Amino acid sequence: MAKYAKLRQLGHETPVPASPAEALLETVPNPHPGTLYLARFMQPEFTSLCPVTGQPDFAHLVIDYVPRAKLVESKSLKLYLNSFRNEASFHEDCTVGIGKRLVKELSPRWLRIAGYWYPRGGMPIDVFWQTAAPPKGLWLPDTGVASYRGRG
Amino acid sequence: MAKYAKLRQLGHETPVPASPAEALLETVPNPHPGTLYLARFMQPEFTSLCPVTGQPDFAHLVIDYVPRAKLVESKSLKLYLNSFRNEASFHEDCTVGIGKRLVKELSPRWLRIAGYWYPRGGMPIDVFWQTAAPPKGLWLPDTGVASYRGRG
Amino acid sequence: MAKYAKLRQLGHETPVPASPAEALLETVPNPHPGTLYLARFMQPEFTSLCPVTGQPDFAHLVIDYVPRAKLVESKSLKLYLNSFRNEASFHEDCTVGIGKRLVKELSPRWLRIAGYWYPRGGMPIDVFWQTAAPPKGLWLPDTGVASYRGRG
Amino acid sequence: MAKYAKLRQLGHETPVPASPAEALLETVPNPHPGTLYLARFMQPEFTSLCPVTGQPDFAHLVIDYVPRAKLVESKSLKLYLNSFRNEASFHEDCTVGIGKRLVKELSPRWLRIAGYWYPRGGMPIDVFWQTAAPPKGLWLPDTGVASYRGRG
Amino acid sequence: MAKYAKLRQLGHETPVPASPAEALLETVPNPHPGTLYLARFMQPEFTSLCPVTGQPDFAHLVIDYVPRAKLVESKSLKLYLNSFRNEASFHEDCTVGIGKRLVKELSPRWLRIAGYWYPRGGMPIDVFWQTAAPPKGLWLPDTGVASYRGRG
Amino acid sequence: MAKYAKLRQLGHETPVPASPAEALLETVPNPHPGTLYLARFMQPEFTSLCPVTGQPDFAHLVIDYVPRAKLVESKSLKLYLNSFRNEASFHEDCTVGIGKRLVKELSPRWLRIAGYWYPRGGMPIDVFWQTAAPPKGLWLPDTGVASYRGRG
Amino acid sequence: MAKYAKLRQLGHETPVPASPAEALLETVPNPHPGTLYLARFMQPEFTSLCPVTGQPDFAHLVIDYVPRAKLVESKSLKLYLNSFRNEASFHEDCTVGIGKRLVKELSPRWLRIAGYWYPRGGMPIDVFWQTAAPPKGLWLPDTGVASYRGRG
Amino acid sequence: MAKYAKLRQLGHETPVPASPAEALLETVPNPHPGTLYLARFMQPEFTSLCPVTGQPDFAHLVIDYVPRAKLVESKSLKLYLNSFRNEASFHEDCTVGIGKRLVKELSPRWLRIAGYWYPRGGMPIDVFWQTAAPPKGLWLPDTGVASYRGRG
Amino acid sequence: MAKYAKLRQLGHETPVPASPAEALLETVPNPHPGTLYLARFMQPEFTSLCPVTGQPDFAHLVIDYVPRAKLVESKSLKLYLNSFRNEASFHEDCTVGIGKRLVKELSPRWLRIAGYWYPRGGMPIDVFWQTAAPPKGLWLPDTGVASYRGRG
Amino acid sequence: MAKYAKLRQLGHETPVPASPAEALLETVPNPHPGTLYLARFMQPEFTSLCPVTGQPDFAHLVIDYVPRAKLVESKSLKLYLNSFRNEASFHEDCTVGIGKRLVKELSPRWLRIAGYWYPRGGMPIDVFWQTAAPPKGLWLPDTGVASYRGRG
Ligand SMILES: [Ca+2]
Ligand SMILES: [Ca+2]
Ligand SMILES: [Ca+2]
Ligand SMILES: [Ca+2]
Ligand SMILES: [Ca+2]
Ligand SMILES: [Ca+2]
Ligand SMILES: [Ca+2]
Ligand SMILES: [Ca+2]
Ligand SMILES: [Ca+2]
Ligand SMILES: [Ca+2]
Ligand SMILES: [Ca+2]
Ligand SMILES: [Ca+2]
Ligand SMILES: [Ca+2]
Ligand SMILES: [Ca+2]
Ligand SMILES: [Ca+2]
Ligand SMILES: [Ca+2]
Repeated sequence: MAKYAKLRQLGHETPVPASPAEALLETVPNPHPGTLYLARFMQPEFTSLCPVTGQPDFAHLVIDYVPRAKLVESKSLKLYLNSFRNEASFHEDCTVGIGKRLVKELSPRWLRIAGYWYPRGGMPIDVFWQTAAPPKGLWLPDTGVASYRGRG
Repeated sequence: MAKYAKLRQLGHETPVPASPAEALLETVPNPHPGTLYLARFMQPEFTSLCPVTGQPDFAHLVIDYVPRAKLVESKSLKLYLNSFRNEASFHEDCTVGIGKRLVKELSPRWLRIAGYWYPRGGMPIDVFWQTAAPPKGLWLPDTGVASYRGRG
Repeated sequence: MAKYAKLRQLGHETPVPASPAEALLETVPNPHPGTLYLARFMQPEFTSLCPVTGQPDFAHLVIDYVPRAKLVESKSLKLYLNSFRNEASFHEDCTVGIGKRLVKELSPRWLRIAGYWYPRGGMPIDVFWQTAAPPKGLWLPDTGVASYRGRG
Repeated sequence: MAKYAKLRQLGHETPVPASPAEALLETVPNPHPGTLYLARFMQPEFTSLCPVTGQPDFAHLVIDYVPRAKLVESKSLKLYLNSFRNEASFHEDCTVGIGKRLVKELSPRWLRIAGYWYPRGGMPIDVFWQTAAPPKGLWLPDTGVASYRGRG
Repeated sequence: MAKYAKLRQLGHETPVPASPAEALLETVPNPHPGTLYLARFMQPEFTSLCPVTGQPDFAHLVIDYVPRAKLVESKSLKLYLNSFRNEASFHEDCTVGIGKRLVKELSPRWLRIAGYWYPRGGMPIDVFWQTAAPPKGLWLPDTGVASYRGRG
Repeated sequence: MAKYAKLRQLGHETPVPASPAEALLETVPNPHPGTLYLARFMQPEFTSLCPVTGQPDFAHLVIDYVPRAKLVESKSLKLYLNSFRNEASFHEDCTVGIGKRLVKELSPRWLRIAGYWYPRGGMPIDVFWQTAAPPKGLWLPDTGVASYRGRG
Repeated sequence: MAKYAKLRQLGHETPVPASPAEALLETVPNPHPGTLYLARFMQPEFTSLCPVTGQPDFAHLVIDYVPRAKLVESKSLKLYLNSFRNEASFHEDCTVGIGKRLVKELSPRWLRIAGYWYPRGGMPIDVFWQTAAPPKGLWLPDTGVASYRGRG
Repeated sequence: MAKYAKLRQLGHETPVPASPAEALLETVPNPHPGTLYLARFMQPEFTSLCPVTGQPDFAHLVIDYVPRAKLVESKSLKLYLNSFRNEASFHEDCTVGIGKRLVKELSPRWLRIAGYWYPRGGMPIDVFWQTAAPPKGLWLPDTGVASYRGRG
Repeated sequence: MAKYAKLRQLGHETPVPASPAEALLETVPNPHPGTLYLARFMQPEFTSLCPVTGQPDFAHLVIDYVPRAKLVESKSLKLYLNSFRNEASFHEDCTVGIGKRLVKELSPRWLRIAGYWYPRGGMPIDVFWQTAAPPKGLWLPDTGVASYRGRG
Repeated sequence: MAKYAKLRQLGHETPVPASPAEALLETVPNPHPGTLYLARFMQPEFTSLCPVTGQPDFAHLVIDYVPRAKLVESKSLKLYLNSFRNEASFHEDCTVGIGKRLVKELSPRWLRIAGYWYPRGGMPIDVFWQTAAPPKGLWLPDTGVASYRGRG
């Protein structure tokens, strides 16, 4: 498949990038470039580090976007998200920052990201950002992620 | 029932078509052609092949449409979807492509399709497409498909 | 209670009508005729016959309506729905047809019906119809019926 | 607390009123009278009598309102709802009637009530009424009550 | 497939039997006759008639059995269960009776049946019967059917 | 049906008995008297009065029994349970007492009862009683009633 | 009711005891003293203090016991549990300690307690203790408390 | 991290403030000050005192806000919420009051708060307040908190 | 890692085997050979063909085993299960047959398999087999797979 | 609290240990040393590395143990589990290995561990180990972790 020939990570053994800055987000051409549709990725395996304590943080991420010319290649997306493993970052900044990086790389018509962070001190934080109100005519279902319920 | 007399698949032993191109989508007249209503099909038994690795992919599909003159005959729809069994296709393309084929065959007033794909590399992809904003006055409930939750 | 004195089915032993045509839908005066409110019936015990194979079909129905002068008497509604037991009908036609019969009998301000049919050939069909966009100011919650999930 | 000094039921042994007509709905001043907010009560322990058979009926009620000058005192609300124990009433009338009584007593900016009645003859009835479209700017979440599912 | 050649219903258009007495339960040879294993059928589409009122009854059935020489052919099982459509029978008798008929026809090592009946008069009845304590060494999971919860 | 001819409540308009002492529990012959099986009733519509405050109490009851010669006639069971409507009784005593009354009337091989009471003062009480360890060879599934979870 | 005449807390305004040591656990005679049955209390509103940090801890408690001569009076139980509000205690010690105090006061035939504590540092702790293996013939359902699931 | 150097509570042993008035809500600069995004905190461990009886009350709180220049520092938020432990307050007042205090301290673009209170007298109260209709273009998912269901 | 050096599929591009007979199940040494523990695989992506109609069948499989000297290498297990894609097989035979093949290849101390098949003709079939009663001392949790619920 | 005075990690800023070998598992005296009770830890935030690909793996762990003289100090347990962040380990080996390390450090009367690993190649693995059959008389509830369900 010619359009995938240039990809450096898909189909190759690729180590986890040492940091987000070093991660390579790759794209492929959108096969339906004139069509308004949504692609959603769920990453329940996200982890980064707390800038204050150095302890690990965990999150369940949901990324929704409407592609323009490019689709994100999903292996490169996974590696980019995995590259936060040794990165120190606050929840609000980390979640919004991932969204902005994706916007820069994909130039999507629209994008949003949710970070559902595991509780610290008894309270979880959820962060929700979108680039703008969703395009008219887009089908955009709820993410359906369960709310935190503590115990019982 | 005269209007079903021409159907080639319903009521006949019919093998799975060898490919989507060979599948015959049949229709019957809409018994309520002037009425704005929705028909929803859920296909939790969808499978195709990965174009890169040849490994099988799985998805739970939901198809919603507002018929104009024609209803899709459901056995022919099932056979069409089953015809992807040996077809190589990326998730985004496959989901949107099925929607477009149905639009071509059914000329519905409106149609949308969701593909909830099983995870690869830890991340599932969901794809959502609709032909336009839903017609005014249509009753269009949420699909209610659970979000992916990983483990725990 | 004088207003119920004319009812032929409520408070009487009443056999299941032999067909929908023979079923008697009875009404009582709406006690709040100038008030915009919704009544919802759930009938998880609906069954009819497949016109092609003669095999039984099953559905979970939800009927929502905004009464004008009349309320449907619920025993007569049950008997009407039970009268489909020996009736052959396709899913789309049956669901919309019940809705239209109720509209004729009740002259409601607004009505909608959902038929959640059990799967055949691995796929269930849901049918959703409403008479128009809901009246402004009506409280109209989601039906909350679970989506079909196959297995697992 | 001076503003509670006049209450006749809160802090006193109070029998269940013999009928809704005899029930005393008491109020306290709204501590945030200029603020648009919602108070929701759930009463899963509601029971009344069937006017035709005299058998008991049961319902799960949800009452949402936007207070103006007065808040309903919750013990008096409980006693008012309990006063239906020996009252004969049809589901539609009972649910809407409770809503109207509350409107009369509380003069709220807005109110709605849902009655989720237990099934009779295999079918449950839900009744939903609101005084008007909700005030702009109000946060009004779904009631989240599960739909009836029969068995299985 | 020679062993299926004698089957009169599988692969043939077969009407619903007029009564359980007329239903033909067919079997095929157990492909693992020396092996202790369980087969479970769920039939959420069961209906019969009330002997007292003639009104339809509904149930969700679960049948578990350990085959000896014979497996029940599943289309014939479906037709047998469908044959109760016009049969009058009390819940306890009907459920246990189906179990006993299957025992007679299949001579299984062990069998059990559960009938989860829809509520009448506000109360559902569940009926559970097994031929004996389960064979030692059998893997026999819970049926996992949700309990009845009324409303709310 | 001769064996039902003597029943005084089934098929007759029957008021709610004024008290449990006045309720008539009727039985019919067990159609499978030599068979070890279980019948389960769920009554989510139980209510009685608090002996201390006179306020209503509510419970969801589950009754499991193994019949010997007699089956309880379910309308009479419903009326018996409804007769607690004006009866004052503590949770532990009420639940066990109903079980003992049924044992006296039905002479079952075995019986158990669960009362899942609504919370008072923030804590619900559940009461569980059985006449003895279950008979060997009985199939006795869990009641599957959800635990109380408070909020969140 | 004479047997309740001596109770000092039920039916009286009673402040929260200042500490568990000061709390008065009161009992009433078991109305079924020769009967083997279970009473279960769920307390989802338990809070105490962390001995190391002084920060509040929260738990959902479940207490199951088989009474001998005495039943715990439930208001006194609530007050006893509320008395931990200003008490410093580790999770394991606190949970088992409450169980032992109840054993001392109630002399039950058998008792068990579960403490489902809210997470600290990302991990919740559950503590389970019982006085002995449950008495033979006791009906003792699972507590049914949901496991902790983090996020997603 | 210089911007955190002034914080008095984060990274220090800090006792629970004696009252909300004494609690110090601290903030840090919003790292994405020109971006419209939402931060959500869930606090399932909230407790205060009933002004009438002195008994403890419990709630599950959800706080959503759109930051302007400042983010609330989450440890200080936790301590502020914990400071209600010995504070007497009615449900409606307490919930709205916390929201207003946060508005004063954070000057957010928008804020809302939900208090899901545990039942008293059988009825829970939920309170919902927001500063205004949500800003256009904000992604604001439902809180997803389960409704109260009583028992069964 | 030397012990993985001989593996022919892990770490190599490997096509789906053309049939189960051609599939290579590979093993690695059990790192805890003297320890009684359980490994569980869930395969919700299983598909084969119906021997009578040639139509695809789908199942959710659960495989539990106690290793002796060998662990199954999971990529080879996946490829083996994928090799059924073009294999015709009845549900009972297929499920038990997979279990027996694994027993032959792994020589485990104990093994069990569950096949949760998607419904055909309205009824799903579940098949459960184990090699023997589980070894004493093994921790063997329930599979926790939801039962089939049809609709509603 | 003297008995905690020697702890090196609780109450101190402590970095994540560089490897499990370097992690210090600390203990405190069991306050109920002669009592048979269970402590359960849930760690939904576990991550390690795949020895073959170097990619991160994720798991939800459940650890149950019956203490003898020592309780594990929970902060040290968290740090020990966090120390796997840069450790390469297969699922079966990692899960059982953690259990064995805890046995060595705590000398418990009994211990078990479950690892619910996130899916790779479409299949999740669960690993279950216990030191022996549970002690008689121990209360040991199910872990209640949901099974993996793929999509739909
Ligand atoms: Ca949600
Ligand atoms: Ca959660
Ligand atoms: Ca929880
Ligand atoms: Ca999960
Ligand atoms: Ca999770
Ligand atoms: Ca379903
Ligand atoms: Ca299912
Ligand atoms: Ca159902
Ligand atoms: Ca319900
Ligand atoms: Ca309820
Ligand atoms: Ca609840
Ligand atoms: Ca809770
Ligand atoms: Ca209930
Ligand atoms: Ca159902
Ligand atoms: Ca699934
Ligand atoms: Ca599925």
